[in-house]
Amino acid sequence: MPKLFKKRSKKAGLPPGTLVYTGEVKSKEVKIDIFNYSESSFDEKVVKGIDECLLYKDKPGITWINIDGILKNEDLEKLGKGFNIHPLALEDILSVDQRPKEEDFISNIYIVLKMLSYNNLKYEIISEQISLIVGTNYLISFQEEIEGDVFNSVRERIRSGKGKTRRLGPDYLAYSLVDCIVDNYFIILEKVGERIELVEESILKKSSESSVKDIHALKREMIFLHRSVWPLREVVGGLLREDSELIKDSTKIYLRDVYDHTIQVMDTVETYRDILSGMLDIYLSSVSYKLNEVMRVLTIVSTVFTPPIFIAGIYGMNFEILPEIKWRYGYPFALFLMAASSLSMLFYFKKKRWI
Amino acid sequence: MPKLFKKRSKKAGLPPGTLVYTGEVKSKEVKIDIFNYSESSFDEKVVKGIDECLLYKDKPGITWINIDGILKNEDLEKLGKGFNIHPLALEDILSVDQRPKEEDFISNIYIVLKMLSYNNLKYEIISEQISLIVGTNYLISFQEEIEGDVFNSVRERIRSGKGKTRRLGPDYLAYSLVDCIVDNYFIILEKVGERIELVEESILKKSSESSVKDIHALKREMIFLHRSVWPLREVVGGLLREDSELIKDSTKIYLRDVYDHTIQVMDTVETYRDILSGMLDIYLSSVSYKLNEVMRVLTIVSTVFTPPIFIAGIYGMNFEILPEIKWRYGYPFALFLMAASSLSMLFYFKKKRWI
Amino acid sequence: MPKLFKKRSKKAGLPPGTLVYTGEVKSKEVKIDIFNYSESSFDEKVVKGIDECLLYKDKPGITWINIDGILKNEDLEKLGKGFNIHPLALEDILSVDQRPKEEDFISNIYIVLKMLSYNNLKYEIISEQISLIVGTNYLISFQEEIEGDVFNSVRERIRSGKGKTRRLGPDYLAYSLVDCIVDNYFIILEKVGERIELVEESILKKSSESSVKDIHALKREMIFLHRSVWPLREVVGGLLREDSELIKDSTKIYLRDVYDHTIQVMDTVETYRDILSGMLDIYLSSVSYKLNEVMRVLTIVSTVFTPPIFIAGIYGMNFEILPEIKWRYGYPFALFLMAASSLSMLFYFKKKRWI
Amino acid sequence: MPKLFKKRSKKAGLPPGTLVYTGEVKSKEVKIDIFNYSESSFDEKVVKGIDECLLYKDKPGITWINIDGILKNEDLEKLGKGFNIHPLALEDILSVDQRPKEEDFISNIYIVLKMLSYNNLKYEIISEQISLIVGTNYLISFQEEIEGDVFNSVRERIRSGKGKTRRLGPDYLAYSLVDCIVDNYFIILEKVGERIELVEESILKKSSESSVKDIHALKREMIFLHRSVWPLREVVGGLLREDSELIKDSTKIYLRDVYDHTIQVMDTVETYRDILSGMLDIYLSSVSYKLNEVMRVLTIVSTVFTPPIFIAGIYGMNFEILPEIKWRYGYPFALFLMAASSLSMLFYFKKKRWI
Amino acid sequence: MPKLFKKRSKKAGLPPGTLVYTGEVKSKEVKIDIFNYSESSFDEKVVKGIDECLLYKDKPGITWINIDGILKNEDLEKLGKGFNIHPLALEDILSVDQRPKEEDFISNIYIVLKMLSYNNLKYEIISEQISLIVGTNYLISFQEEIEGDVFNSVRERIRSGKGKTRRLGPDYLAYSLVDCIVDNYFIILEKVGERIELVEESILKKSSESSVKDIHALKREMIFLHRSVWPLREVVGGLLREDSELIKDSTKIYLRDVYDHTIQVMDTVETYRDILSGMLDIYLSSVSYKLNEVMRVLTIVSTVFTPPIFIAGIYGMNFEILPEIKWRYGYPFALFLMAASSLSMLFYFKKKRWI
Repeated sequence: MPKLFKKRSKKAGLPPGTLVYTGEVKSKEVKIDIFNYSESSFDEKVVKGIDECLLYKDKPGITWINIDGILKNEDLEKLGKGFNIHPLALEDILSVDQRPKEEDFISNIYIVLKMLSYNNLKYEIISEQISLIVGTNYLISFQEEIEGDVFNSVRERIRSGKGKTRRLGPDYLAYSLVDCIVDNYFIILEKVGERIELVEESILKKSSESSVKDIHALKREMIFLHRSVWPLREVVGGLLREDSELIKDSTKIYLRDVYDHTIQVMDTVETYRDILSGMLDIYLSSVSYKLNEVMRVLTIVSTVFTPPIFIAGIYGMNFEILPEIKWRYGYPFALFLMAASSLSMLFYFKKKRWI
Repeated sequence: MPKLFKKRSKKAGLPPGTLVYTGEVKSKEVKIDIFNYSESSFDEKVVKGIDECLLYKDKPGITWINIDGILKNEDLEKLGKGFNIHPLALEDILSVDQRPKEEDFISNIYIVLKMLSYNNLKYEIISEQISLIVGTNYLISFQEEIEGDVFNSVRERIRSGKGKTRRLGPDYLAYSLVDCIVDNYFIILEKVGERIELVEESILKKSSESSVKDIHALKREMIFLHRSVWPLREVVGGLLREDSELIKDSTKIYLRDVYDHTIQVMDTVETYRDILSGMLDIYLSSVSYKLNEVMRVLTIVSTVFTPPIFIAGIYGMNFEILPEIKWRYGYPFALFLMAASSLSMLFYFKKKRWI
Repeated sequence: MPKLFKKRSKKAGLPPGTLVYTGEVKSKEVKIDIFNYSESSFDEKVVKGIDECLLYKDKPGITWINIDGILKNEDLEKLGKGFNIHPLALEDILSVDQRPKEEDFISNIYIVLKMLSYNNLKYEIISEQISLIVGTNYLISFQEEIEGDVFNSVRERIRSGKGKTRRLGPDYLAYSLVDCIVDNYFIILEKVGERIELVEESILKKSSESSVKDIHALKREMIFLHRSVWPLREVVGGLLREDSELIKDSTKIYLRDVYDHTIQVMDTVETYRDILSGMLDIYLSSVSYKLNEVMRVLTIVSTVFTPPIFIAGIYGMNFEILPEIKWRYGYPFALFLMAASSLSMLFYFKKKRWI
Repeated sequence: MPKLFKKRSKKAGLPPGTLVYTGEVKSKEVKIDIFNYSESSFDEKVVKGIDECLLYKDKPGITWINIDGILKNEDLEKLGKGFNIHPLALEDILSVDQRPKEEDFISNIYIVLKMLSYNNLKYEIISEQISLIVGTNYLISFQEEIEGDVFNSVRERIRSGKGKTRRLGPDYLAYSLVDCIVDNYFIILEKVGERIELVEESILKKSSESSVKDIHALKREMIFLHRSVWPLREVVGGLLREDSELIKDSTKIYLRDVYDHTIQVMDTVETYRDILSGMLDIYLSSVSYKLNEVMRVLTIVSTVFTPPIFIAGIYGMNFEILPEIKWRYGYPFALFLMAASSLSMLFYFKKKRWI
Repeated sequence: MPKLFKKRSKKAGLPPGTLVYTGEVKSKEVKIDIFNYSESSFDEKVVKGIDECLLYKDKPGITWINIDGILKNEDLEKLGKGFNIHPLALEDILSVDQRPKEEDFISNIYIVLKMLSYNNLKYEIISEQISLIVGTNYLISFQEEIEGDVFNSVRERIRSGKGKTRRLGPDYLAYSLVDCIVDNYFIILEKVGERIELVEESILKKSSESSVKDIHALKREMIFLHRSVWPLREVVGGLLREDSELIKDSTKIYLRDVYDHTIQVMDTVETYRDILSGMLDIYLSSVSYKLNEVMRVLTIVSTVFTPPIFIAGIYGMNFEILPEIKWRYGYPFALFLMAASSLSMLFYFKKKRWI
C-alpha cells in the first residue's frame, strides 16, 4: 500500500526557504538536458553542470531545461539566483510531499504536480513530483527520478517541428507538459478500472475473505488518487484565472481543455469510490446471505432428526416395565412416531418456505 | 453492466487537436443528410461527401447538416476548415468519452451531449455521443451511430413547417435537439423506475440472493446516469449565461425550460439512488430478521429436546445397579421428568416471547 | 407507496408548448368560479365556460378565477390568448409532474406548486399540482381535481372583507394562497410525525419484521416530501428576489414570512429523515442483540447437556467387558461425572458473564 | 424524548397576523417587570397591566420590559400598537415553535431565540422561546414561562451599574441577553457531554441492549439541539450584517464575540454527533464479536463431543452379531476411538486459532 | 481519550471582558522572557513582573514578549492597558477552550491557536492554547504552560541573526511562530499515521476485540484534530485577507505558504478519517466472515453425524421384536446406512462448495 506521506518532520523548525529533500534518496546522479528552439531552429544537448544552464538565460529562442534527479543544494541555489526563482519555490521543489499547487512569483510561475505511474507487479500507484518554472523565454522542469517520464511525445514534437510547440512560447510548452501528465492519469485510471472490474466479477461469483482486502487496497488507492487529483483542478483553474503576462490568452483555450480533463479524472475517481462502496455492500450482504443458508441447513437437519433421536432414546431405556417394548408392533409404532415427528417438522419448514 | 469508460489511453501523448476516435468502430459507413430551410422554403437531401456540405456554408436560409457515423479524419478536417471549427472541437467530436460540455469558440458554439437509449433485452442503458456545432446560419450535428436517433419529431416539424422551428434560427434548432435528448431521458428514467419498483416489490415479498445483484446493477446504472446527467445542467446553464450573439434572448426562455427539465432529471436520479440505498437496508435487515427466526426455531427445538434426550440416555445405561429401572413406575417417572424439563423450557421461551 | 412520477414519456418528442395532460384523467368535469372584488365591492359566481372568464380581463377590481379540473386544450388556449399566458406556462399547467417553480413572463408571473393531502386510510400522501398566474389585476389558479382544496379560509376572508386581502392586489392574494398551501404542509408533517413516533415506540418495545417495512414506507414518504418541499424554497425565494412590478414591496414582507415557514418545513423533513435513519439503526442493533441472546441460550443448554449425554452414551454401550457397569457405585459415579462436567461448563459461562 | 414540534396546525388557514399561542398553556399568570435606567439613574418595578408599560415609550433613559408568561391577545395587540410592533412579529411571539430568526422592521428589530434548560431528573432538554423587540430606547423581552430565566446576571449588572450596560443603548442590552442565552448553551452541552462520556464508558466496558436506547436518546437530543443551534448563527450573523441604526457599530464587536461562541456551540454539537455515530459502531461490532465468541464455544463443544457420542451410539446398538462387543479390549478400543476423534477436532481448531 | 472540552460553564452569566481562566491550574508560576532586536542589535532577558514589560512599549527595535503560564488577572489587565489590548482579547487569552481565530482590533491583531504535542506513553494528543498579540513594533505571545514550546528554532534564528527575522517586523515574527506551530502538526500527524498503520496491519492479520477500541480511540483523536485544524485555515486565510497595515504584503507571500500547509494538514486529517472508516469496514466484514466459517464447520460436523447417531439410536432400542437385530449382516447393514447418510451429506456440501 502506498505510504500516507513522506517525512515532512525533517523540516519542522527550519526557517522558510531552507532546502531539504524530504523523499528517499535513491541515487545521487543528476541528468540535465536542454532544448533550445524557435520556429526555425532547434538545438538539443545534455549538459554537465548548472553553469552551462545559466548561459541559456538570455539566449534567443525558447529554452527548456529538464532536470532529472535531486540537485545538490548549492547547485539549486545557483540556478535559483540565475533564473530569479523565489526561495520558497526552491524549497518546494525539494519538498516532494508538496500538495499540487500553482503560484505566481511575478518573474516566473511555479507549478508543482504529481506524475503517477503504475507498478504492474505490485499493483501499486507510484507518485513522482514534477515542478515547473515558467518564465518569459524559458521553462525549467524538475523530476525526482532519472528514469521514466511521460514527456517523450513533447520532445518528439519539438524535434520534428510538427504541431504548434515550436511556434509558441514557454506557456504552451508548460501546457503540453501538464497535458501529458493529465493524459497519463487516464492510463492509470484504466488500469485501476480493470482491476476494479476483476474484483467485482470475482465478488459476484464467489466472495472470499481476500475480496475485502482487495476492496480495501483499492479504496486506499482511491484515497491516494483523490489526494493527487483533487488539487490538480485548482492548479489548472488557477492558471486559467492567472492575470500574469506569462500565460497568454491563446494558451488558455488549451488550458480549458486540460481543465475539462482534470474534471473528468476527478469524476472517474469519485465514480470508482462509489462503485467500491457498492462492492463492499454486496460482499457483506452475500456473506450474510450465506450465513443464513448455512444456518437453515443446520436448523433443518438438526430439528428433523432431534425428535426421532429422542424417541429412539426412550425405547433404548432399560426399564423393566416398559410396555411398548413388548408390543408386537412396537418397533413399527416407534418408526411411525419418528417419521411423523420428522415429517411434521418438514411440513412446518415447507410452510415457512425454508425448503 | 455498462463499461466504466472508453479507451482514452489511445490518445495519451498525442498533441492537442489530433483526431482519434476513442470508441469501438462498429461500421465504416457514414450517412449525411442536409436540411435547408427558411420560413417559406424547405429542402431535404442526402449527400455523399463533405464537399457537397461545404456548398451550404453561405447559402441563404438555415442549414442543418446531420452526420451519422464516424467521418474519416481528412473529411472531418475539411469540414472543420470549411465551417471554421476549432481543432479542439474536432478532436472532442471523436473523443466519444467526452464529458458533456458547452464551449464558445466565437465563430460557433460547440455542444457535446450524451443521447441515451435503453436496451430492453439486456436491461442496459446505452450511451451515444452527440456533438452540435451552432453557427450563424448553420447547425452541424454529429452522431456516433447511423441508426436510431430521437430527432425525428424535429425533422417532422421542419418538414411540416408547423411550430416555430422554421421561423427561428439555428439556436432554436439547437434548443429543439437538446430538448429532444433531455425529453428522452425521462423515458429512460421511467423504464429504470419500473425496474426499481419491480425489484422493490420482490424484495418486500421475498428476498433472495439475486436481489442484491439486482440492486447493485441498478446502482451502477444510477452512477452511470449521474455521470451523464450531472454535467448536462452545466451545459444548459452555460448556454443560458452565454453572451454570444449566436444564442438569441428569445431562445433563452426555451432553454430555461430545458434547464428545469435537466434539474428534474437530476432530482429523479438522486431520488432513485436514495430509494436503492433504502432497498439495500431492507434487504439486509430482512436477511438479519430471517436469520433470527431460523435460529429461534433451532434453539427452541434443540433445547426442548436436549434434556429429555439426556434423561433417556441415563436410563439407557447398562449399570447393574440402577435402582429406578426396577421401580414399578420407573418408566412413567422418566416420562414425567422429560415432560417437566421440556415444559419448563417452553415456559421460559414463552416468557421471553420467543414463541 | 406513492408512485415515483407520472408519465412524462407521453410528451417526449412533441414541440414545446404542446398541451398534454400527463396525469391520470379522473373526471372530465371542470368547475370555474370567479371572485371579483375591490375594497368596497365584492362579487362571486360560478361560470360555465371560458368565454365568461375573458370578460373579466379588463373589469375594474381584482379578479380571481379558480379552475378545478383539467380544461380542454382549446379552452386552455383560448384562456391563454385572452390573458396573454405564455405557451410554455400553458404546457406546464398540464404537465402535472412539474417541479415547483416560479417564472416571470413579464406580463404575468407563473407559479407552480404542490398541494399535499393525507389519506388517513392508506397512510399515503397525495399530491395535487396547483398553478397560479399572477397578473396586474387578476389571478388565475388551476387545480387538478375538483374536490378538496385549502383555499376556503382565503375565500372566507374575501367574502367577509376582513384582513387585508380586499385592500391589496393580486400579489397579496397569491401570497395568501401560497401561505395556505405551506401552512397545510405543517398538518401533513404533524400526521407523519405522529406515525413516526408510533413506529418508534413500537420498535423500542418490540421490533418485528413489519417495523422495517414501516420505516421503509416512511422513508419513501420523506423522499417524496423532500422532492415537493425542496424546490418550494427556491419558488418563494425567487418571488422575494423578483424585480417585477407585479410583486409589490409591501407584499414581500409577508413572503419573507412564508419563506421562513418553507425553511421550517424543510428542516422538519430533514429531521425526520435523521430520525428514521436512527430508527433503522436501533432496529438492526436490537435484531443483532436478540440473535445474540438466542444463541447464548442455545449454546448454554447445548454445551451443558452434551458432556452428560456423552457419558450416558458410554455407559449405554453393550461391551461385555465394561468394568464400571459392575461397580457398586457405578451409577452414582456416572451421575457425579455428569454433574461435574455440567457444572464446570456453567462455571465457565458464569466467568464469561453469559449467565 | 422531546416532542418533535408543537401544534402548528392550529394556525393553518388563519390570515397572517392572527394571534394564536401554539404551545401548551401551563398558567394564565403573566408577570411584567420593567427596568428604566440611564448611566446615572436606575428604576425597577413590577407592573400589573399593559397600560403602565405604554407610559415608558417616550420616557427618557432606556427601558427594558420583560414579560413572563403568555399575554392575552388584546393586551398583546395594545402593546403592539403602543410600541409600533409589526403584526407578523406579534404573531411570531405566540408561535412558540418559531425557528430562531432575526427581522428588521425598521422601527424596531425582532429577534426570536430558544432558551434551553436541562431537566436533571428526566435527562431531558427543555426549550423555551424568547422574543426580543429592540427599539431606539426600549427593549421588550417575551418569555413563555414565568419561572426560570438566565438573565439574572444582566439584571444584577444593571442594578449595580457595573459593566457597560447602563452606559450603552438597548442594542448592547440585547447583546447581553443573547450572550446569556448562548453562554447557557455551554452548560447544556457540558451536561450532555458528561452523559455521552458515561454511556461511552459503559459501552466500552459491557454493552447491553439499553446502550442502544441511550445512544438513540442522545442522538435525538442532538437532532433537537442541532435544530435550535443551527439557525442561531444566522440570527447573530444577521445582526452583524444589519444596516439598521438600531445596532451600533460599537456593539458589533461584542456581537462578533457571540458569533464565535455560536460557531463553537455548533462545532460541539457536530462533534457529539460524530462521537455518537462512532459509539453505535462500537456497540454493533462488540455485539458481533460476542456472537462470534458464543458461536465458537458452541461449535467447539458440539463438534468435539459429536463423534464420541456417535461411537458410543454404535456400541450401544443391540445387534446380536456385533464383534467388537465381545473383544477383550473392546471398551478401551472404543474409548481410544472417541479420544482420537475428539483430539483431532481440537487439533483442527488449534490450527485454525479458534482455541 | 482527550476530554471533549474544558469547563466553559465557569463563565456563564459573567459580563463580557471578565477574566476567568477556564483550564485546570497546574502551576502558579509565570515565566516572562523578552527579546528586543533590530537588524543590528539584539537583547534577550528574563523579567520578573509586568512593569518591566511595559517599558518596552516605545523602545526602538522590535520586542517579543513571551509569557509562559497564567498571569494573575490584575497583571493581565495592567499589560492590556499598557499595550492597548481589547478587553475581549484579554478574556479570550484566559478562555483556553477558545476556537482558533484571528481578530483585527486596529491597534493590534489578536491570533489564537492550538499548539499540539503528543504524549508517547498514553498515545494522547495534548493541546495548549497559544495567543499572539501583534502590534506595530511588538509581539506578545501567551502560552498556557511553562514547559515545552516549539519556538526554539525561532529564538535561535533571532539570536544568530540568520534568516530574515531580524530584518523584518513583528508580522514576520508572527508568521514564524505560526509556521512553527503548523510544522509541528506534521510531526503529530506522522505519529498518528504510524499508529494507524500499525492498527491497520494488525487488523489485516488478525482482528481482535481490542481492534475496535483502537479504531475508536483513533477516530476520536481525528475528531479532536479536526476541531483544532479546521479553524486554522480560516485564521491564516483571515490574516491573508487582512487589510491592516500591521500585516505587510511582503509577509503575505510567506503566509500563503503556511496556508498551503494548513490545507495539507486538513487533507491528511480527512484522509485518515477515510482510512479509519475503511478499517472498521474490514474489521466488521472479517468478523462476519469468521462467523460464517465457524458456523460452516459446526453445520458440517453436526449434520454429518446426526443421521448416523439417529440410526445408532434405532438399533439401540430394546424392542423384543426388532428384526434387523437378528440379521446376520445387521451390523454391517447399519454401518452402511450410516456411511451412506453421512456421505450424501458430504456430497451435498461439496456441491454447495462449503467444503
